[in-house]
Amino acid sequence: MDDPTFQTLADETPLPDTIPARLRQQLAFVIEVDKLKTILRQSPLAAVQRRENDAEHSWHLALMVVILAEYADEPIDIGHTLKLVLIHDLIEIYAGDTPIYHPTMGADQAEREVKAAEQLFGLLPADQATEIRALWDEFEARETPEARFAKAMDRLEPQLLNWMARGGTWLSPGITADDVRARKAVIGDASKALWDASREIIGEGERRGWARPGR
Amino acid sequence: MDDPTFQTLADETPLPDTIPARLRQQLAFVIEVDKLKTILRQSPLAAVQRRENDAEHSWHLALMVVILAEYADEPIDIGHTLKLVLIHDLIEIYAGDTPIYHPTMGADQAEREVKAAEQLFGLLPADQATEIRALWDEFEARETPEARFAKAMDRLEPQLLNWMARGGTWLSPGITADDVRARKAVIGDASKALWDASREIIGEGERRGWARPGR
Ligand SMILES: [Ca+2]
Repeated sequence: MDDPTFQTLADETPLPDTIPARLRQQLAFVIEVDKLKTILRQSPLAAVQRRENDAEHSWHLALMVVILAEYADEPIDIGHTLKLVLIHDLIEIYAGDTPIYHPTMGADQAEREVKAAEQLFGLLPADQATEIRALWDEFEARETPEARFAKAMDRLEPQLLNWMARGGTWLSPGITADDVRARKAVIGDASKALWDASREIIGEGERRGWARPGR
Repeated sequence: MDDPTFQTLADETPLPDTIPARLRQQLAFVIEVDKLKTILRQSPLAAVQRRENDAEHSWHLALMVVILAEYADEPIDIGHTLKLVLIHDLIEIYAGDTPIYHPTMGADQAEREVKAAEQLFGLLPADQATEIRALWDEFEARETPEARFAKAMDRLEPQLLNWMARGGTWLSPGITADDVRARKAVIGDASKALWDASREIIGEGERRGWARPGR
């Protein structure tokens, strides 16, 4: 990250310099975030046997916002919530994915991610860098109804994939159904109905042996 | 598609029936659209050597709407434009991707896609099926500023990937730079600035031999 030889994708094949500077900078950013498609998550897809990547995940959350917005307990601006989920994992392009059930990677996660945000969003014109950084900070802080709903989607989506995988990351070493419930409880900060459904899914998974019982 | 043995993903592992019926139906749809991650496009990724899938593509268009909305020649509602790009390829889950430079697949494309829309959106509660179908019809008709901008993103994104691939699908059999320009001209219906940039990219690609010259 502090590597002076660091190159963006667009540095390898620069766009024509006849494109106005601001737009050229924005297009270089658009090209750079192609890397999100290479960041693998732990979650197994439901449709085919491979792991999900962050771009697919981000799209899925956005689609869920469109379909499930009616369950938000506080009114949410759907367009704003969509922006939050679309950009929420961008920093993983430079910081990597931190698995939710990983025992140690969480320790320096915040520091790595802030550095990544500065480097990645810094590729944009300054006004947009500020705007996208503010969206990411809002998502992380979970102090607005939109951020809480976005976070709920982020927790609910892998849960649906784990259900379809009949276990998936619920069966990570040392994890029990109680641990899963503890990590998913933030869904309840956004939607009582979705948290009820989430608990039904985890509870039934536990009964079927797709998550380890109790502690 | 008319196969009576057709099963959705959620039919294989039904969600707990303790979840309220409407929500359960919506979650089954959310699971079914996981299949978008398996629909491969022709476009090569910029970040790694493999083809792009429709979920990644849809996310990328949405991110581009956020970053490039300022170039829309008519005022657009960003949230609404995001909805259009997020759902615009869903019907390919049942209809498949029709490559833009394919000589014959275009013939029955419309018919296949309408059937697919009925089957896929029909998994949703009726009010939402109507809503999502209306979004898809709007995208296809290109009669609103939002739909025109969404379409422009759909044309611009693979162009950036082709640039990074130094050819990509521009070098499809029998295709020249003029053919590429003809298919990309719809970008100009949404944004003069983006169409100017698009032509700079194709023109420079042509000069470098990444697209075949003339006709
Ligand atoms: Ca996430």
